[in-house]
Amino acid sequence: MSSQAPHPTLLIPGPIEFDDAVLQSMSHYSESHVGAGFVKIFGETLSLLRQVVRSTDPNAQPFIINGSGTLGWDLVAANLVEAGEDVLVLSSGYFGDRFADCLTQYGAKVTKLDGPVGGVPSPAEIEKALSEKKYKLVTATHVDTSTGVLFDLKTLVQSVKKVSPDTLVIADGVCSVACEELAFDDWGLDGVITAGQKAIGAPAGLSISFFSARAVEVAHNRKIPAAAYFANMKNWTPIMKNYEAGKPSYFSTPSPQLIHALNTAFKQLLANGIEKRIAKHVEVSDYVKESIAKLGLKPVASKKEDQSHAMTAIYLPEGVGATDVLPKLLSKGVIFAAGLHATIGPKYIRFGHMGISAVNSNRGDIDKALNALKESLGECGYKA
Amino acid sequence: MSSQAPHPTLLIPGPIEFDDAVLQSMSHYSESHVGAGFVKIFGETLSLLRQVVRSTDPNAQPFIINGSGTLGWDLVAANLVEAGEDVLVLSSGYFGDRFADCLTQYGAKVTKLDGPVGGVPSPAEIEKALSEKKYKLVTATHVDTSTGVLFDLKTLVQSVKKVSPDTLVIADGVCSVACEELAFDDWGLDGVITAGQKAIGAPAGLSISFFSARAVEVAHNRKIPAAAYFANMKNWTPIMKNYEAGKPSYFSTPSPQLIHALNTAFKQLLANGIEKRIAKHVEVSDYVKESIAKLGLKPVASKKEDQSHAMTAIYLPEGVGATDVLPKLLSKGVIFAAGLHATIGPKYIRFGHMGISAVNSNRGDIDKALNALKESLGECGYKA
Repeated sequence: MSSQAPHPTLLIPGPIEFDDAVLQSMSHYSESHVGAGFVKIFGETLSLLRQVVRSTDPNAQPFIINGSGTLGWDLVAANLVEAGEDVLVLSSGYFGDRFADCLTQYGAKVTKLDGPVGGVPSPAEIEKALSEKKYKLVTATHVDTSTGVLFDLKTLVQSVKKVSPDTLVIADGVCSVACEELAFDDWGLDGVITAGQKAIGAPAGLSISFFSARAVEVAHNRKIPAAAYFANMKNWTPIMKNYEAGKPSYFSTPSPQLIHALNTAFKQLLANGIEKRIAKHVEVSDYVKESIAKLGLKPVASKKEDQSHAMTAIYLPEGVGATDVLPKLLSKGVIFAAGLHATIGPKYIRFGHMGISAVNSNRGDIDKALNALKESLGECGYKA
Repeated sequence: MSSQAPHPTLLIPGPIEFDDAVLQSMSHYSESHVGAGFVKIFGETLSLLRQVVRSTDPNAQPFIINGSGTLGWDLVAANLVEAGEDVLVLSSGYFGDRFADCLTQYGAKVTKLDGPVGGVPSPAEIEKALSEKKYKLVTATHVDTSTGVLFDLKTLVQSVKKVSPDTLVIADGVCSVACEELAFDDWGLDGVITAGQKAIGAPAGLSISFFSARAVEVAHNRKIPAAAYFANMKNWTPIMKNYEAGKPSYFSTPSPQLIHALNTAFKQLLANGIEKRIAKHVEVSDYVKESIAKLGLKPVASKKEDQSHAMTAIYLPEGVGATDVLPKLLSKGVIFAAGLHATIGPKYIRFGHMGISAVNSNRGDIDKALNALKESLGECGYKA
């Protein structure tokens, strides 16, 4: 039995439902941010992040900072690119476009390759682009939360190593870390930025990121210092190293409560091996996709290989609007999210199946949601 | 009886002890950041911030963003100053110096006026500086957490209005909001930046700020767009306005748990009128200063009018080091902070007396701390 007050089941692509233990970790009594107890917890949490992204390189660097997924873009844009340098942004939706906006805001010269709606730019297009210009970095959204499109990072890194090996490869893993396969070292990534409130299952409020040794070097050896202070990696690197080494350190006050919750969430998701957890997300995602197909509905991500396992963006039947369906779902105790894409916004809804709702099938969240969806569409006059 | 596990009393200058109700607010079940329930709470919290800083100007703008006090400096430096513009920083310690560093990082031309150790730059020096150059803004640390020095913001604004009325006046209120008198409208301030974990009594993890209508205009009418994304006021202003108007809005996911805790903290501190709460902090601070004088100890802030009511930085007796006293205090269940000032670092300790520890005298936190201090110094061989 959950200790949480009764509430509708939150199945948007983040924030997600909390495990009781994670939520209760937030209620930790107040501690000094430089006291022995918190230093130990924070240091341990940073080390756990290495396991979550599957890196054993001691020179790669985890960062956990008060903020959000968005702040991760700033870390990349402010520190790894200098004004006027070229960046290739691979976009499969709203969040790829926003990453491009952030980079542009900091003065990067952005070339954006867009996939078709519900798809990704092709490897051939990407290789062509990489061969035409010297890019400082290339970014890809591992799962674009606006479309539920999964990006093949492994193949991307292979292309980059072949065509332009000095280019850094940065993944936006906000909606993928802890639910999609991700092997930082094996694939050869240079950065993954994420947040606590999606598949990791912690409360919102943290920017969580991980950078390769060469990315950290780029940040620390800029020609022109980064015009950022809070988002300046040079200010944070020694702090993170100290905490992980068990030494108190101060640049800006971290949030002990959020770190406690993240620590619990990390331990839970690593307890049985992260591979198992990811396999469970794949299983649940396959089940969701099959179930909506039976309802006669189509995912926005049209090709199987482009479909994320974190969430499903679902096209609504002709004549049924999101503003009709979402309140009906809510009346049945299920919260989905509205569309968030410039072209197809009102035509689809988003179903997040991450974390405890996917992993703990005893909760029945997924079937509850699928049943509520079927009923709600029926009430809108739709029959599968 | 507190519902919190037994723990040493945290009396550093933030984070501070939590009220149970504030801490429990963090355990709220997961909500959509754009759902009706959270939109109402967030909007209300923004409106409550107006009351906390005593502003009734509908065109002044509250901001509550995942972050920390430090991020408030970025908001000021990234948005209100353009590269090469002059800024006058009034410093009474480490945090004034750091604000200057942040402004410099963003390209501002900083002139720093330092007070003597334990004091503030004089009004005459400030007026002289203001008359020598056209400053885009002047910043002052209301309470410098490194020294416990209080800055007279009211007189500062009067000087600026007289000598350089176009100059914006920005206060770092991280360690002053909710424990020192602060009248945003009456005094004519243009910005106050603060954080949740000091006198407000909420958990760390939020950057809380408030800007005058003319400051917001400066941010929105820059010659060159701010090279910042997460810390860009233009990205946040419409979001904050929407939430306060009860409309869901999205730029970056806020932390519902932290906002719930902040909402509870704000309601508590406004419940009996903020003036009463501030008067109580003055009373407790006076008592602490008298008590340490009886122990033969001196505050770092030497003049009465320069002494903050949030905390007391206390010089240790000759021959007694912070590394001797702090562990002895901890063994008696009291946590003070070490010194944090370039010149006098090891010679003093810091005692935070904010929030529930000051306001709720039934807890006995203050006397417990004073007794522990007396005993600890005795164990170090010091006799008053």
